Amino acid sequence: MSSIKMFEKPIGMRDTFPITYEKMEAMQQIGRKFLRARGFDFIKTPTLEYYDTVGKASAIYDASLFKLVDTQGNTLVLRPDMTTPIARVATSKLLKEKIPLRLAYFANVFRAQQTEGGRPAEFDQMGVEIIGDKTVFADSEVIITAIKLLQNYGIHSFKVTIGHAGVLNCILRDYTESEEQANKLRSLLVERNYVGFEEAVVAFDLPKTKSNALLEFINEATNIESIQQIEKYVSKNDALLYMRQLAEIMEAADLSEYVSFDFTLSSHMNYYTGMLFEVFAEGSGFPLGNGGRYDGLLQRFGNDVGATGFGLRVDRLLEILPALQKEEQTSLVIFENAQFTKALGIANSLRTEGKLVTLQAKEGLLDEQAFIKLFDEVVYVSQEDVEQ
Amino acid sequence: MSSIKMFEKPIGMRDTFPITYEKMEAMQQIGRKFLRARGFDFIKTPTLEYYDTVGKASAIYDASLFKLVDTQGNTLVLRPDMTTPIARVATSKLLKEKIPLRLAYFANVFRAQQTEGGRPAEFDQMGVEIIGDKTVFADSEVIITAIKLLQNYGIHSFKVTIGHAGVLNCILRDYTESEEQANKLRSLLVERNYVGFEEAVVAFDLPKTKSNALLEFINEATNIESIQQIEKYVSKNDALLYMRQLAEIMEAADLSEYVSFDFTLSSHMNYYTGMLFEVFAEGSGFPLGNGGRYDGLLQRFGNDVGATGFGLRVDRLLEILPALQKEEQTSLVIFENAQFTKALGIANSLRTEGKLVTLQAKEGLLDEQAFIKLFDEVVYVSQEDVEQ
Repeated sequence: MSSIKMFEKPIGMRDTFPITYEKMEAMQQIGRKFLRARGFDFIKTPTLEYYDTVGKASAIYDASLFKLVDTQGNTLVLRPDMTTPIARVATSKLLKEKIPLRLAYFANVFRAQQTEGGRPAEFDQMGVEIIGDKTVFADSEVIITAIKLLQNYGIHSFKVTIGHAGVLNCILRDYTESEEQANKLRSLLVERNYVGFEEAVVAFDLPKTKSNALLEFINEATNIESIQQIEKYVSKNDALLYMRQLAEIMEAADLSEYVSFDFTLSSHMNYYTGMLFEVFAEGSGFPLGNGGRYDGLLQRFGNDVGATGFGLRVDRLLEILPALQKEEQTSLVIFENAQFTKALGIANSLRTEGKLVTLQAKEGLLDEQAFIKLFDEVVYVSQEDVEQ
Repeated sequence: MSSIKMFEKPIGMRDTFPITYEKMEAMQQIGRKFLRARGFDFIKTPTLEYYDTVGKASAIYDASLFKLVDTQGNTLVLRPDMTTPIARVATSKLLKEKIPLRLAYFANVFRAQQTEGGRPAEFDQMGVEIIGDKTVFADSEVIITAIKLLQNYGIHSFKVTIGHAGVLNCILRDYTESEEQANKLRSLLVERNYVGFEEAVVAFDLPKTKSNALLEFINEATNIESIQQIEKYVSKNDALLYMRQLAEIMEAADLSEYVSFDFTLSSHMNYYTGMLFEVFAEGSGFPLGNGGRYDGLLQRFGNDVGATGFGLRVDRLLEILPALQKEEQTSLVIFENAQFTKALGIANSLRTEGKLVTLQAKEGLLDEQAFIKLFDEVVYVSQEDVEQ
């Protein structure tokens, strides 16, 4: 531990310097305005939560949790996501009055990293949750909000890929011989290990009709244009009907071009019980964000009302975002000690013009030439005259 | 631990609900605009830092630190203040190019609480730091910025109380007989225990001239209008000259009415080496914020350039703040399933009018009468006609 240098940060921790900060701030303001206009209310939850409540419920791998023990001996976690804290908050009396709740957040979340490999251990998420509405319209509002939010940022090359935990479960159950086989295949899909999926299907030594169906499914179901394509694998059930309705709503909202269906989609977030989706920007290997319906999580918090939502990764959004902030002019007012009062007046009047004005004593400058280069405009206030 | 209820939060942790969130957001935007106009650049640092770097240097009591151990066996802390992380960041190459640096932040910090006694364990601070300028003008810029920031919020009943660690050290050294006695008196002043100070002076059994001087000092020095009043206690030195200059600058900036001097002011933040100050709003027992010069801290990070700054407590500021946010009209568009497309169009057109519009399927409402009461305007889109 003695090897830690004074300037070092823990693994996966980042500083945000002014240029990135301003871009992030501009993004946040645009997102806030947009989401509030759709009736979402912003909330904040604490950084620390009990492991026994939010930590265990969050479905983030335990090894990724930052844990600590408080003075009472309780284990705490740094929140690994925002969905679980919001499920906790939604049980509060204050918020229950407005069911269905539309909540939004812009918050940092934490995932412990084992090595300094470029993955951040702390990152920002922007997202929404609709709590207390079990209809397909709550799900479609979530997806439409995600799409419109990206469009609002000037991003148009992206795709929302939608699946359904219920449909997938049906298929896995119908074409395997045991719960264990179904779970094995599901966990391979969580990892997107399609090769492993095919190998497992072969290794299970299933009846030909079943193994053929599964192999055909894995090749076809990742990119489906119409829900009908999936009907050959699964008898008509509520989940399939639900997905049809969802597809129709996307059509009615004129957003079909942004949507595709992937019935192999499965999440390690085991609280997703129905529709789930991922958002991919063109040319990016990582999802911009994801979401879905998680009625099961609310039940855990004693609230059987149904919930659906999405979260976007702010860092990934920033990477593909066009410039958002307006150009601002920076001015520097340099003064000799005796001229402070005059310089103060000049700085104040430049500020009223909307400029960003730094007031600086000449005596405090170590390298005047280097410093003045950083500003668009420099005003000297010296004993002689005011030169501009 | 099994006694933790699902809705519980760790000690001192708070949720922020929409109304407070919006007030805080409005405050943050006003503060950001104001501080940027004065040439400050906003930065963000990670929530977690190494205990060996930021944790030990921060001068927050060790028992107040949230500590955890990472997978490498290093002890981490949740940042207890922002001054120390900024001292770390200021050593980075990127920022060194703009010395004197003017940095600003709006950030949450953490202080572990032993009991649920109303004190938050996580709270927001807004502040600035000027790094790399040892002149009195950097200190005055910090104080003027604090005063003007509060004025900018519409707050006018407040006082900035300024002291100087160097002047106090001189007096304590000159009128005691040992380093130990001086340290004892200083720690009583940190706690504002003036009665304890007087008792200690008597108990030290000092020569009458010394004990009388100390007792007179403790009665007089807490509220001084003019620096001259303190000159009888201490021979003219650089620190006193510095404070005179500072008073003159406040006069020149026409802000003397907000300033008083308290030469008994002392901080448990032992990195304050020169001028230090506290901001009190009228009628509040707790300081709104504090600041000062902390050249010693920068040296610890291998950066002998001098630094000065302040931080305000956002929660205390919120309490005394007038309403900041503008009134916004909320609309609710309720639709029957078949009318989704029409309702979507209506919601979008209301949004273009600047309204906050919630689009809600009638089918998803558990208690329609209670829900519609929460909106300024309700639009029904039903099979018959569009009633408004």
